[in-house]
This record gives sequence, structure tokens and C-alpha cells, in this order.
Amino acid sequence: MLVSVGRRKAHFRTVTFDTNSNEVRLIEQRLLPHEFKIVGTADYRATAAAIRDMVVRGAGAIGATAAYGLAQGAQAFRGRDLRKFQAHVGLVFETLKAARPTAVDPVNAMLQVRQHMAAGESVIEQQALAVAAAEEFAHENVEHCRQIGKVGARLVEEGMRVLTHCNAGWLAFVDIGSATAPMYAAQAEARRFHVFCDETRPRCQGATLTAWELAQQGISHDVIADNAAGHLFQRGEVDLVIVGSDRTLGRTGEVANSIGTYTTAVLAQRHGVPFYVAIPLSTIDWNLKVGREIPIEDRSASEVLGAWGVNGSRRREYVRVANPSSGARNPGFDVTPPELITGVITPAGIFKPGDLWKNRGKLQQ
Amino acid sequence: MLVSVGRRKAHFRTVTFDTNSNEVRLIEQRLLPHEFKIVGTADYRATAAAIRDMVVRGAGAIGATAAYGLAQGAQAFRGRDLRKFQAHVGLVFETLKAARPTAVDPVNAMLQVRQHMAAGESVIEQQALAVAAAEEFAHENVEHCRQIGKVGARLVEEGMRVLTHCNAGWLAFVDIGSATAPMYAAQAEARRFHVFCDETRPRCQGATLTAWELAQQGISHDVIADNAAGHLFQRGEVDLVIVGSDRTLGRTGEVANSIGTYTTAVLAQRHGVPFYVAIPLSTIDWNLKVGREIPIEDRSASEVLGAWGVNGSRRREYVRVANPSSGARNPGFDVTPPELITGVITPAGIFKPGDLWKNRGKLQQ
Repeated sequence: MLVSVGRRKAHFRTVTFDTNSNEVRLIEQRLLPHEFKIVGTADYRATAAAIRDMVVRGAGAIGATAAYGLAQGAQAFRGRDLRKFQAHVGLVFETLKAARPTAVDPVNAMLQVRQHMAAGESVIEQQALAVAAAEEFAHENVEHCRQIGKVGARLVEEGMRVLTHCNAGWLAFVDIGSATAPMYAAQAEARRFHVFCDETRPRCQGATLTAWELAQQGISHDVIADNAAGHLFQRGEVDLVIVGSDRTLGRTGEVANSIGTYTTAVLAQRHGVPFYVAIPLSTIDWNLKVGREIPIEDRSASEVLGAWGVNGSRRREYVRVANPSSGARNPGFDVTPPELITGVITPAGIFKPGDLWKNRGKLQQ
Repeated sequence: MLVSVGRRKAHFRTVTFDTNSNEVRLIEQRLLPHEFKIVGTADYRATAAAIRDMVVRGAGAIGATAAYGLAQGAQAFRGRDLRKFQAHVGLVFETLKAARPTAVDPVNAMLQVRQHMAAGESVIEQQALAVAAAEEFAHENVEHCRQIGKVGARLVEEGMRVLTHCNAGWLAFVDIGSATAPMYAAQAEARRFHVFCDETRPRCQGATLTAWELAQQGISHDVIADNAAGHLFQRGEVDLVIVGSDRTLGRTGEVANSIGTYTTAVLAQRHGVPFYVAIPLSTIDWNLKVGREIPIEDRSASEVLGAWGVNGSRRREYVRVANPSSGARNPGFDVTPPELITGVITPAGIFKPGDLWKNRGKLQQ
């Protein structure tokens, strides 16, 4: 999407791959909204660390990053022994997979890359196929998001007030985003609407990333404390909710997403406000049988006990907010059951979450 | 309650009055948990500013502060003209009332003081009665909290996990607290339990004040992001919710409290977890007919767009978290309807919120 860099506007993607230097290039999202910077990872371990440390985050973005990371790891292999090469690629795969256990996109993305690689008969062929397949995954991700926009645009009507949680914007994908795709499409169709961005503690992706994205694209919005959503629902000030997902179970329609999504869905249902989840196909997990089996990352207590921001001297700084002698619980995700979800917006259309399984023919990549 | 000051533990109240200097003495709550400091307000305007700027906050604490502030304003009057004195007291009353429009305690406290003052036949008599009545209000507030503890202690059973939102602890009252009173009483009866403190964005009274209080009293607790409560409910990790209230409508049982309380109540109901509101009698508004008439403070956007904490050099600092070009909505309170409330714990017993009105004989001060 367009980003103002100095006085100019330029087009950027969240994740790209530089074949010459064998580097994955990422927007350093931890610096946003205060600084816009592209960083490169020198090897697959650095790419895994970038995923784990949330230099890059969001379902599609870490999917593409993992795909590129697998290609990067494959490219770095020296030698012609295919069995050693495959063992090496297996290690790369596991390293990247372990970086964010709740998400399914990295696994799906890397499986897709590995499948393409299998057609190669030598190390060098498989290496070339890995890069091509990673590029293909990223390209598909963009096309999926564009298609989500086409499918979902009609939901965002003139004058609506739309609530979103966390960031499922273009920064969470390669471009365009999932939850934001219908908004950007509605904007392209010249409709005006207002977005409430839940700040999304503890990492505040809503206040930092979604608000920044929407500001860059000139979409009217306000940041709210996550606590304020209930009051806005009560006062009839929310017409529509669209969120993303880190993993959606194809068998049950359960949706794992950033912590607080479940609460938002409970409120939406109580107030009769439609609650949509927007996802590319790579976010669907067709294997897992029940939401309780989704591993929920327990993240660092320091995220809850303080906040990152910029101080009066414009320096980026962490401040400890909470009582120094207190600890914290910090589950990173929650699981929203299908009965709270009005529809799942996919590139192949909008489905009831309970209908994903019977439509798997259309939805499986 | 007991506070560790250096190596010693000493007993403090949140609000006291020094008749010699005609100063209201307050724990500077904005510095907690990082610094424990008592400040004095030189005149009633400074006292109103302390309420408005949240040097002191919480239903009972600002009630007592307003009562003392009214006495302070009355004491500062020079002259013997009773009509001029009463006009002056009226001005003091309105100034203190305007400091926090959502709360009802300041108004109830000041009405109580004015009623006592009316028995005086001269300025000097009314001044003396004002101070005595303010002391009486503060004393009653402590007794009410102690009684809430006695009434509510049985709810906090051995091994329970109790969720609380915001701070309705002793810092929100003169001593003991309302939501915390049953916890402190259960602790005194040697029961063990664990408390989850919602951090309570945007002002983080849970992370700063409740966590500090519980740590001082040695009660096991964790801070959680407000977003994490839903997940803990889903996993069956919350057995009981107790919160306070800034204004409870005697006619309807609606409860105004810090933003996010409504969401917590919605979650508790969905998961069949008892949701209690603990209040002294001064928090009941017997006049207002419907919750929608409760004025909801719109607080500064900067509260949502950033956070106060201490940095690496232990300096207190505000950091801007959100995108610099984005605005925010910041309603300070929400209103929880009676159907979501299991019971209201009062000094006179536990009542269904819908039964307050028919029990007003027991509940009106």
C-alpha cells in the first residue's frame, strides 16, 4: 500500500525477498507508527527470530516470511547431496514453525513451498523451485486479499461505524490486508465510513499499526481502549465488526485470533451487530479437530506490565506501568466459537463458519 | 491499610483532613505504584483540581475528599455574614461537584455535610459542624467498607480465582475498599485465593493501584490485559467477579463504573460466573430514573493514545503509543444493567440489584 516517506508517497509490501543477497526484507513493525524502516534478515535463523520477536506479525505476513525464510535457508545450503539438503530444509522448516506456534500460515506456506520443491531432481533445482514457490505464495496472498476486498466491500456501507481488533491490515499480510480489504475496497468505491480501532493491549497493534495504516490511506478512524468497545456497542455506535484470524479451523469454524477477539465477538452478538472474520485460504487449518487443541502462546509478562511508545524527546522507550512486585498472565490469543461469527469472508466468498468444511472443495488451496 | 515505607509498615488512610493547616491530605495516587507520597491541598479549588486530575479517585475516596473540601472551603471563609457564607459554600459545593460528573459520592457526601451544617446558627458554628460532618462521612465510609467485608467474606472461598476490574480497593475509599473488602476479610479468615487484576486501560488503575494494594497486603495476584479476561473465563479460570461502582441507581439497579466493567459483566454472565458489585451506601443514587441519564465523562484522548509509567532510569514518563496522527474516543465509564449483576454487596447485606428500591428503608443513609 502507499506510505508517505518524507514528502513522497511510495508503494511498499510488508515482506519481500532479495535473491541477490538472499535476504528477507521486512518492514520493522515494532518501530511503527513512530518510524518507518525496512530491515533485512541475513539467514533463516534471523528470519525465525524476526517472526518470534514480532518484527513481522500477522497471519499472511508471517506466512510469506516463513515461505521466504524456507527458500532463504534452502538457498544457503552448499553441496549437492540431496539427502543432506533435505535434512537441512527440515531443520529450517522446524525452526521457522516454532517461531509462532498459534499461527497456521507459516506451516501452510512452507508445506506449499516444500511441495513445489519436490519436483526438483537436484539440490540446485530444488533451491530454485523454493524461491519461485515462496514468491508464488506471497503473490497468492496479495491476490487473496484483493479478492477478500471484492467479496466483502458490500458489507461496508455508507456512513457505517466499523470496529476492528488488532491489526489484520496490509501490515499483517503481504499487501492490502484481510479485515481491512473490504474497507479499502469500499473506500475505492467512494463510500465514507468510520473505523474504531481497539488499541489491542498488550501489544497495541490496533493503536500502532491499524491506526497508522488507516491514517496513511486517509480513512476516518479513532483509537479506543479495548474496554470502551462495550460502551460503544451499548450506545448503538458500532454497525459492523471485521477482524482477522491467525488460524481458523476448517472442521469447526472456530477462529483463533489476537487476545480480546472473543470478547469483541461476545459483545457483537449481545448487541446484534454482525461479526465477520476475513481470511485468506492459507489461514484455514483443515487438520485440527477442536479449538482447544490450538496451542495458545503465553507471551512475556513484560508486555502486560508496561508499554512501548515514544517519550517527549521522541525516543522509543519501554515504560513499566504496573506495580513492580506484581506478575502477569499473558495469553496471546483466544478462540472464538462459530456461533458468534456471522460470516467468514474468504477469497472464494462469504461462508458461515460452520459451512467451511462442506465447502472445502472451493476453499482448499 | 498497611503500607511498607522503607523498612517499616505503617497504617495510612487515603484521605485525611488537617484542621490546623486547613489542608486535605491525599495519597498522590498518580505516582503509585512507583512512589508513595502524601500531598496537601491548600484550598478547596486545589482539592477540586486534585479530584479532577485524579490525584485521588474512586467512589468513596472522592466522596470523603469532597466532604473535606467543602469543610475546607467553609473554614476558609472570613466574616460573620451567614448569607454571604452560604453563597460561598454553594460555590464551593458546585466547584467540587463539577470535578467528576459521573460519580455520586461527592454530591451525597457534600449534601450530608450541608445538612449537618444547617443546625448551626452562626458562621463559626456552621464551620465547626462542616468539619465534624466531613469527619463523620469519612468515618462512616470506613465502617461501611468494614461491613462490606463482613457481609461479602463468605463469597471468597478457599482456592477461588477472583477477577476484579479497575480499583475499588482501599485507595478508592478512605480505607479497606469495597470490592477488596471481602478479599481482605477472607484473608483475615486465613483463606487462600488468587486475584486477577484487569489492568483497566486507559488509566491502568488495576495494574497500578489494585496490584500495588494486593502486593502490600500479601494477596496472590496477577495483572492481565483487559483483553485476556474472556480467555480466562472460557478456560474456566475465573470463579468470581467483584467490582466497585461510581454510581449505582437505587431505582433500577444499574451500575456505572470504570469503562470495561460492562464487558466484564457480559463475559461473566455468558460463563455462569457470579458477578458482584460492592458499594457503600453513599454510592447509591436514589434520584436518577434511568442509567442513560448518568453523565459519562469523556476523558482526554491522550489517556488512550499513550501510557504513564517509569522508564529504565526510574523516571516517571508518558509515552505516546498510538499513531501520532490518530485521535481517540475515551469514555471514562459504562453502565452495567441489573440483569448482569448477581448481587450488590452493601453494608446492609447482599441484594439483587432490582431489589435495592424496595429495600431503600435499610439502604438510605
